[in-house]
Amino acid sequence: MKKALIKEESGDLVETPVMSSITIDCVVFGFENGSLEILLVKHGRGIRKGEWGLPGGWIKEDEAIDAAAQRLLRELTGLDNIYLEQLKAFGDPERFPVGRVITIGYNALIKREDYNVIAGFTASEARWFKIKEIPDLIYDHNEILDYSLKRLRRRVRQAPIGFNLLPEKFTLLQLMQLYEEILDIEMDKPNFRRKILRMKLLVDLNEKQKDVSHRAAKLYQFDNTIYRKLTEKGFSFEF
Amino acid sequence: MKKALIKEESGDLVETPVMSSITIDCVVFGFENGSLEILLVKHGRGIRKGEWGLPGGWIKEDEAIDAAAQRLLRELTGLDNIYLEQLKAFGDPERFPVGRVITIGYNALIKREDYNVIAGFTASEARWFKIKEIPDLIYDHNEILDYSLKRLRRRVRQAPIGFNLLPEKFTLLQLMQLYEEILDIEMDKPNFRRKILRMKLLVDLNEKQKDVSHRAAKLYQFDNTIYRKLTEKGFSFEF
Repeated sequence: MKKALIKEESGDLVETPVMSSITIDCVVFGFENGSLEILLVKHGRGIRKGEWGLPGGWIKEDEAIDAAAQRLLRELTGLDNIYLEQLKAFGDPERFPVGRVITIGYNALIKREDYNVIAGFTASEARWFKIKEIPDLIYDHNEILDYSLKRLRRRVRQAPIGFNLLPEKFTLLQLMQLYEEILDIEMDKPNFRRKILRMKLLVDLNEKQKDVSHRAAKLYQFDNTIYRKLTEKGFSFEF
Repeated sequence: MKKALIKEESGDLVETPVMSSITIDCVVFGFENGSLEILLVKHGRGIRKGEWGLPGGWIKEDEAIDAAAQRLLRELTGLDNIYLEQLKAFGDPERFPVGRVITIGYNALIKREDYNVIAGFTASEARWFKIKEIPDLIYDHNEILDYSLKRLRRRVRQAPIGFNLLPEKFTLLQLMQLYEEILDIEMDKPNFRRKILRMKLLVDLNEKQKDVSHRAAKLYQFDNTIYRKLTEKGFSFEF
């Protein structure tokens, strides 16, 4: 078995209990043109040069893990100030080819229109992939993505978190497509419409889409204040 | 900054990216005599000798993290084959006094009657503490416990997981006390009774308590098959 040692400032080597390297990997979801998407980066150097993976990397020794997730996402993809939530740690001893590396998964739901993606740091490229067109990813990143997607599926039924993926103003068709994509099912438009409007969660903006080639649809907005008030009165979101 | 090195089998020292030690800590909930309880261990050696903490310790280099959680809980407390679920990783760089240590929290809900607690390994003592009588714990263990308790509070409202803490056969009063303890609220017995019986989740065993000093109450059982069937029909547990 390998032994782990820490080099003190004095230069002395001190043996420590089992050591592992720790990384962060971020699953960032977006939604565009009716498709659920994931942000991936192509490695610009190292043993995985040219391959795609989740944005992530090493934690600095004096860095809190949430801060490391923020920093790595910013350095690799240009996304700054994203609400990232920890998923869990992935620790199969075989998950990394060289030595023991445990990774802590994070995920985020973002409004695509609010952010520009710019590859940086060790990433030679950063771009969105449709959930149905995800390539083979490095290490266990496909597994981390699957785990995150399953959690999103469960949560999107229990709380109105899907709205974080939509533009501020959206149509009922966009909302339905979002649910169809996340849950991987087909829905009936009139039923969906009735169900969602009955919840009284949406604000009718009395506005219609502009510059569209088809018949312009009505625009709605999700209002978190309304949701909180409904919840206080015993309303429970369920989809 | 300290440097981390790996000693290869050849004896060579190889510098690696940022290294951290990784531990596991388990929050095990039980319920007895109307009180929600947590299993704690007293450290029998090391710098924290004589102090109480969550059962946990170092992960072995070739060990999956779920397996490490099972092993540590078994070695320290005698609890074997427990359904442990990962909470998340706790990684404040200051959480551990000597070097960087990230810990991965786990939690479990168990039926107290099914298990005997036996202290072992580095624990000189292992016993249950009422949730309202938790002492100051080592490192950030009080914080991990709080996080776990908040998650339990949220989940117990969304799914019938509380039954994992009750004996196979229980009274409605026990069930109500369980919810009162977890949610830290007082409930109205007739209301609780109506609400829970209306859900049709419980099996009336047509049996009564035995050997009790007060009036014997009816015994019920939770049936997961019934819950699954109700869920398929669109039932959603909500408390």
